Amino acid sequence: MTRWLVNGVPDALVPPTDRGLLYGDGLFETIAFHGGRSALWRLHMVRLAEGCRRLGLPPPDPELLAEECRALLAGTAHAVIRLGITRGSGGRAYFPPESPEPTRIMVRREFPADIDAQRARGIAMRTSPIALAAGPPATDHLGGIKHSSRLEQVLIAADCMDHAADEALVLDAEGMIVEGLAGNIVLVRAGEMIAPGPHPAAVAGVGLEWLRRAAGPALSERPVAAAQLQGGDSLWVINSVRGPCRVRTLDGRELAPDSRLAGWQRRWFEEIEK
Amino acid sequence: MTRWLVNGVPDALVPPTDRGLLYGDGLFETIAFHGGRSALWRLHMVRLAEGCRRLGLPPPDPELLAEECRALLAGTAHAVIRLGITRGSGGRAYFPPESPEPTRIMVRREFPADIDAQRARGIAMRTSPIALAAGPPATDHLGGIKHSSRLEQVLIAADCMDHAADEALVLDAEGMIVEGLAGNIVLVRAGEMIAPGPHPAAVAGVGLEWLRRAAGPALSERPVAAAQLQGGDSLWVINSVRGPCRVRTLDGRELAPDSRLAGWQRRWFEEIEK
Repeated sequence: MTRWLVNGVPDALVPPTDRGLLYGDGLFETIAFHGGRSALWRLHMVRLAEGCRRLGLPPPDPELLAEECRALLAGTAHAVIRLGITRGSGGRAYFPPESPEPTRIMVRREFPADIDAQRARGIAMRTSPIALAAGPPATDHLGGIKHSSRLEQVLIAADCMDHAADEALVLDAEGMIVEGLAGNIVLVRAGEMIAPGPHPAAVAGVGLEWLRRAAGPALSERPVAAAQLQGGDSLWVINSVRGPCRVRTLDGRELAPDSRLAGWQRRWFEEIEK
Repeated sequence: MTRWLVNGVPDALVPPTDRGLLYGDGLFETIAFHGGRSALWRLHMVRLAEGCRRLGLPPPDPELLAEECRALLAGTAHAVIRLGITRGSGGRAYFPPESPEPTRIMVRREFPADIDAQRARGIAMRTSPIALAAGPPATDHLGGIKHSSRLEQVLIAADCMDHAADEALVLDAEGMIVEGLAGNIVLVRAGEMIAPGPHPAAVAGVGLEWLRRAAGPALSERPVAAAQLQGGDSLWVINSVRGPCRVRTLDGRELAPDSRLAGWQRRWFEEIEK
């Protein structure tokens, strides 16, 4: 069975001159398929198109991407496809080519093995000692998009492994909550759902966008510092593969359970995974 | 003639699961060879070893790397080798594998076509409107090393192309001078050579390290804000491929010429390129 497609070619490889490999010069989307379809497809395509605009890449044809996803799924009902777009080869060192010919890379993966366990028992989260490097001018350019220069996230993940944590609460240098490692954060306080933000360095998460549309005014958004978290607060992490998921512990401290989560998880299953 | 080596294999390709391609999860060195040898080899190896230590990668064997460089040069006296080390495949999304098996990628390139012209007429530099995103905790982890999550540099280079600039004066969010796009900055003021810094986000440049050792106390180091540059200041950019090179214009304004540069360029040729 084909494992991946590179520019549509099954199991093809990539030359080491590809700028994705040289410089992390690309974008990606991690797309969950249930019953062969992705209910969040349009949101992924919107973010990808915005990323291409910001990086100066020609936007890919969503029809072609959809067709290649179908080919790669080959009848598999449930799978995750990691769809990557790089700037391809060419240019001179950091200087990009004038007319880039992007590389399309689709890799099929199984759902994470621990996804059901994490949903059932919740997630062990750790406050990352590695703050996101973020300054306003740079985040104007890279903030929000799902680009592939992700060494900060790799180091944060390695730190989680060292401390047996599933996820990280990622802050900026001022201690403001930016996001999770692999999802956005939702804070539930006194029955109110709050998305900490908007933060210029946070990825514009597709799972969070689903919640924002589904919840409407029931989800408010405002900046939250980690130091402002209180004893009775509940936290969720939400991403487009796992949906909303409870944070069971933060830095080893048990967090309050949350009566609203089950309802939102049910809605997620009905709208996204059914 | 072999164009590159991947783990020692001529012209081999890379699977799209390589973490260098997925996340910019790797390091590189750009090494100039003259007469088949690199006078700065040891400095490159020191920086690469430090990068591996910080990223949690097993350090490569310098003997093996030297042997592969020789094989790839195949008698070519003058060439540049881009030596890349990625974390290889494996792990789970951002989470790195416990025992990474790095990928070694050596790509041979010619010297930049405009190197002699740039040395002769100097470089047109532009103050980058994209500041480096830098916070102390993150730069503790990624500062100084030559990692391959370089999308900020790609965007700075694209901005230079849009404005017909050869190089960028890269600042942080507070306006302090960090480095150039592809080299470090040296400021010459009233006959004094100053390396602006140390800055936690700056790459620990091999060319600058050569100058530091060669100049001794004649090169001082102190933080310099772009706003503090004065009319009579001269600027150089120095990297390990081009050596010290005059900045002719900054944002279109002609900079003062500098009587010391010719002497240092001569010394560079004698020690590095002869």
